[in-house]
Amino acid sequence: MIPQETIVALATPSGAGAIAVIRLSGQDAIAIASEIFQSVSGKNLGKQKTHTIHLGHIVDENKIYDQVLMSLFKGPNSYTGENVVEISCHGSTFIQQQIIQLLLRKGAKMAQAGEFTLRAFLNGKLDLSQAEAVADLIASDNEASHQIAMQQMRGGFSNEIAKLREELLNFASLIELELDFAEEDVEFADRSAFNDLLSRIEFVLKRLIDSFAVGNVIKNGIPVAIVGEPNVGKSTLLNALLNEERAIVSDIAGTTRDTIEDELVIEGIGFRFIDTAGIRETKDVVESIGIQKTFEKIEQAQVVLLLVDSSQLSVDSLSNVKVEIAKISNKFPLKPLVIVLNKVDQLAPEAIAHFTNELIDDAQQTTNNRKLITLSAKQKTGIDELKNTLLSFVNTGALRNNETIVTNTRHYDSLLKALEEVQKVKWGLDSGLSSDLMAIDIRQALFFFGEITGEVTNDELLGNIFANFCIGK
Amino acid sequence: MIPQETIVALATPSGAGAIAVIRLSGQDAIAIASEIFQSVSGKNLGKQKTHTIHLGHIVDENKIYDQVLMSLFKGPNSYTGENVVEISCHGSTFIQQQIIQLLLRKGAKMAQAGEFTLRAFLNGKLDLSQAEAVADLIASDNEASHQIAMQQMRGGFSNEIAKLREELLNFASLIELELDFAEEDVEFADRSAFNDLLSRIEFVLKRLIDSFAVGNVIKNGIPVAIVGEPNVGKSTLLNALLNEERAIVSDIAGTTRDTIEDELVIEGIGFRFIDTAGIRETKDVVESIGIQKTFEKIEQAQVVLLLVDSSQLSVDSLSNVKVEIAKISNKFPLKPLVIVLNKVDQLAPEAIAHFTNELIDDAQQTTNNRKLITLSAKQKTGIDELKNTLLSFVNTGALRNNETIVTNTRHYDSLLKALEEVQKVKWGLDSGLSSDLMAIDIRQALFFFGEITGEVTNDELLGNIFANFCIGK
Repeated sequence: MIPQETIVALATPSGAGAIAVIRLSGQDAIAIASEIFQSVSGKNLGKQKTHTIHLGHIVDENKIYDQVLMSLFKGPNSYTGENVVEISCHGSTFIQQQIIQLLLRKGAKMAQAGEFTLRAFLNGKLDLSQAEAVADLIASDNEASHQIAMQQMRGGFSNEIAKLREELLNFASLIELELDFAEEDVEFADRSAFNDLLSRIEFVLKRLIDSFAVGNVIKNGIPVAIVGEPNVGKSTLLNALLNEERAIVSDIAGTTRDTIEDELVIEGIGFRFIDTAGIRETKDVVESIGIQKTFEKIEQAQVVLLLVDSSQLSVDSLSNVKVEIAKISNKFPLKPLVIVLNKVDQLAPEAIAHFTNELIDDAQQTTNNRKLITLSAKQKTGIDELKNTLLSFVNTGALRNNETIVTNTRHYDSLLKALEEVQKVKWGLDSGLSSDLMAIDIRQALFFFGEITGEVTNDELLGNIFANFCIGK
Repeated sequence: MIPQETIVALATPSGAGAIAVIRLSGQDAIAIASEIFQSVSGKNLGKQKTHTIHLGHIVDENKIYDQVLMSLFKGPNSYTGENVVEISCHGSTFIQQQIIQLLLRKGAKMAQAGEFTLRAFLNGKLDLSQAEAVADLIASDNEASHQIAMQQMRGGFSNEIAKLREELLNFASLIELELDFAEEDVEFADRSAFNDLLSRIEFVLKRLIDSFAVGNVIKNGIPVAIVGEPNVGKSTLLNALLNEERAIVSDIAGTTRDTIEDELVIEGIGFRFIDTAGIRETKDVVESIGIQKTFEKIEQAQVVLLLVDSSQLSVDSLSNVKVEIAKISNKFPLKPLVIVLNKVDQLAPEAIAHFTNELIDDAQQTTNNRKLITLSAKQKTGIDELKNTLLSFVNTGALRNNETIVTNTRHYDSLLKALEEVQKVKWGLDSGLSSDLMAIDIRQALFFFGEITGEVTNDELLGNIFANFCIGK
C-alpha cells in the first residue's frame, strides 16, 4: 500500500527568490541526498539525527552546483511519515532545475500534485479531512477561510465526526448483539435512550450541514453585484471599497502579488464583486446594461448593490428607481438588496432626507433584506456603513463561536447521506423495524462518516482529492 | 557598526506555493520567535541547539496562525553571523502576511533589500565580492553564469585578489622600511626582483580585465540580431532555435515560469535575441525594416544573423544580398556576421552549391568573422550547425579552464584603476623614482584591491551594492 519510491519536488513557489526549498520524501531520501551532498565539516548525512540542519555543497562529478542547507527528518517523525530531506538552495530557477534534475538522475521520481500529503495520509499522519484542510490552508486568502482550514487541519472537524461515529458504533454493536440472540428475543439496546441518541446525532449533522452555507461563502467569497444606470459612479464606488484595504496589504513588500483584484475582505470575510472588469473598462460612460444582463448578474450574486445617482434624482427618475427596485424584488424576493444613494455630497440635507424617506418606505415594504445607504463614493463618506451592511448579511455567529464549519462539498455530500441513513434508522426505530434491517442502515451511516475522514476510501476518490493540490505539497 | 535590530522578510518567492520561508536575523531573533511559537512537545525554543528544527504552532493571543517548522541557527554559525530563525509555514500569501505582521508587532523590523547579506558581510561571514556573487547566483539563469557566480561566492576571485594584494603588501612594507632609513640610503627591496613581481601582477590584472569581456556576455547573455527582408522566415527560425530547448526545460513541472522568452542557452552560454517581440508580432508579413533601424539593431548586437530566403534568389537578388553584406561589413567590420540561407529544402543541390559559393566568397573576402550556413527553419535542418556557429564566436576557453572570470562592472573598474597604479609604480621603478613617491602609488593600488573585497568601503558603496539584491536575501 505504501509507496516505496522517493519523490522530489519544488516546495516553494516557482520563480526567483532569495531561497528555494526542494523536498524529497521516501525510504531512500537521505541516501539519495547523501550522494550529492558534501558537508562543509565532512559529516556523513546518513548518521545525523532527525530534525537537524547541515551546511554543505551539492556536488556531482566534481561539479559544484550550490551551497545549501539540508534539513533532515527521519520517518515516522516527518510530514509524510517517511524519511524527508528539505534542500534549501539559492533561489535561481536555474539552480532549482539543476538540483531537481540531479536528484532525478540519482533515482528520485518527480512528485505528483499532492503526493507528499497523500503519503502523509496513507502513513496515518493525517486523516483525509485534515489532508484536505492542508490544500484549503494554502489557498486561504482571508481570515475566515484561514481560521476554518486551521481548525480542520488540527482535527476539529475529524473529532466531531469521530464522536458521532463512536456513538453510532456503540449503538450498532448492541443492535448486532441482539441479532446473535435473535431466538431469545432480547433487547440489549434501550430503545428510548437510542431514540435520544439518534436525535442528538441528527441535530449535530443538521448543524454541520447548515454550516456549509456559511462555510461555502467563506471559502469562496460572497459574490456581490453592483448594478445601476451608466454614470452613477459604479467604478468610483468599487475603488473606494477596495483601495483602503489594498494600502494595508502593500505595506509588506514582496507579499502582495496574489491579492485578488476585486475581492474585499471585511472582518475576515471575503466579498467578490461580479463582473467588475466590465465596470472598470467602461468607466461608466458607454455602459448600458439591459435588464436581462442585469438579472444574470444578480442571479450569480448573493448580495445586490443598486447604485443610484442621487444628484440626478427628480420626481420622475425617483419613480423609475422605485420601478427598478420592484423589478429586482419581484424576481429575487429573498436576495439581500442594498439601495445605495451615491453623490449625496451634491445634495442639500432636506433633499437627502426626502429621497431617503421615499425609498426607505419602498425598501422596507417587502422584507428586511432591503437596506438603504447614502454615501459619496468620491468623497469616501458612508463607505464604512456600506461595509457593515454587507457584513450584516453574513451569519458569522458560527465562525465567532469557533464552531466546526463545513466548507468542503465532498464532506457536505457525505453528511447529507449520513443524515438520510440516520433518519432511516430513526424511522425504523419508531416503526419497530427488525434489528437486522436497522443494523444495515446504521452500517451505511457509518460508511458515510468513514468517507469523510478517509477510513473508507478508494483510489478514484484519493485521485480526485489530491489532484487539486499543488505539486510540492 | 553591526546593527542590533532584528530584521524579518519573506525569503522564498512571493505568491502561493506548498511552503514559504520567513527569515529572522538579529540578536533577538530567537527571543522574538519564541514569543509566538508553541512547540508541539512543549520545548523552549531558547534552550535548543543550533541547526535544529522544531515543529509547532504560531500562536498569539490564543489565536493559532499556522503549523510551522522553526529552524534555529545561533550566531556566529549562521548565514548572517547573527541569531537566525527560519520559519517554514504553509505557502498561502495570507499566512505569510499574517506571520510577518505578527513578527513586526513583536519588535522585528522589515528587512531592506540585501540586508541579510549586508549583515553577513559586516559580520565577516563573506567578503564583498562573495556577497555580490550571492546576488549573481540568484540571478543566474544558465550554466556559465551559474558556474562563475559559484566560483566567486566560494572565494575564487577573492583569493586571486588576496594573493596579488599580499605580494604588493610585502613590496610596500619593504619600500616603506627604506623610508625609515632614508638617511642611510639603503635598498631593502631588490629592484630587479620587484620589477619581475610587478610584471607578474600586471599580467594577472590584465588577464582578469580581459576576462570581463567574456564575463559580461556570460552574465547578461550575448545579444544576437536577426535581420533580413520580410518573409524570409525570421520568426520561424527564432522558433526553431528556441523550441527544442523549451521542451527540455518544461520537463520539470513548476520550475519553468521564469524562463526568459527569447533566450537560447547553448552549452551553458546564453544568447539573447534582440527585438524579437517585433519579429513575432509582425510574423514577417508587414515588417519592413529600414536600413537605419537595421543598423540600430546591429549596433546593440554582438552577433548578426542575416537571413536570406534562398528559394527566392536570382541573379538580381543575389547581388542585392551582396550589397547588404557589404553595407553591414563596412559599417561593422569586426562584428561577427552569419549569412543564413533559409528554405534550402526548396532548392536543388546545385542551386544551393552555386549560391553558397557566390556568397561564401563574399563572406570570407573581408574577415573570418563571416560565416555562411544553409538551413531550413521550417524543416529544422541545419539548426545545430547554426548553434555551433553562434557558440564559436564566444571564447569560452577561460570558462572551460575554470579560470577566474570577472563579471562585475564594479570589479572591472577597480581592476582597471589598480592596473593603472601598478603601471605607475613600474614606471617609477624604471625611472628611479624616490621610494616615498612609489609608496604612495603602491598604497593606491592596494586601495583599489581592497575596494573589490570590501576591506576598503563606505556606506554609499554598500548602499549601491545591496540595493540590487532582492528582499529576503
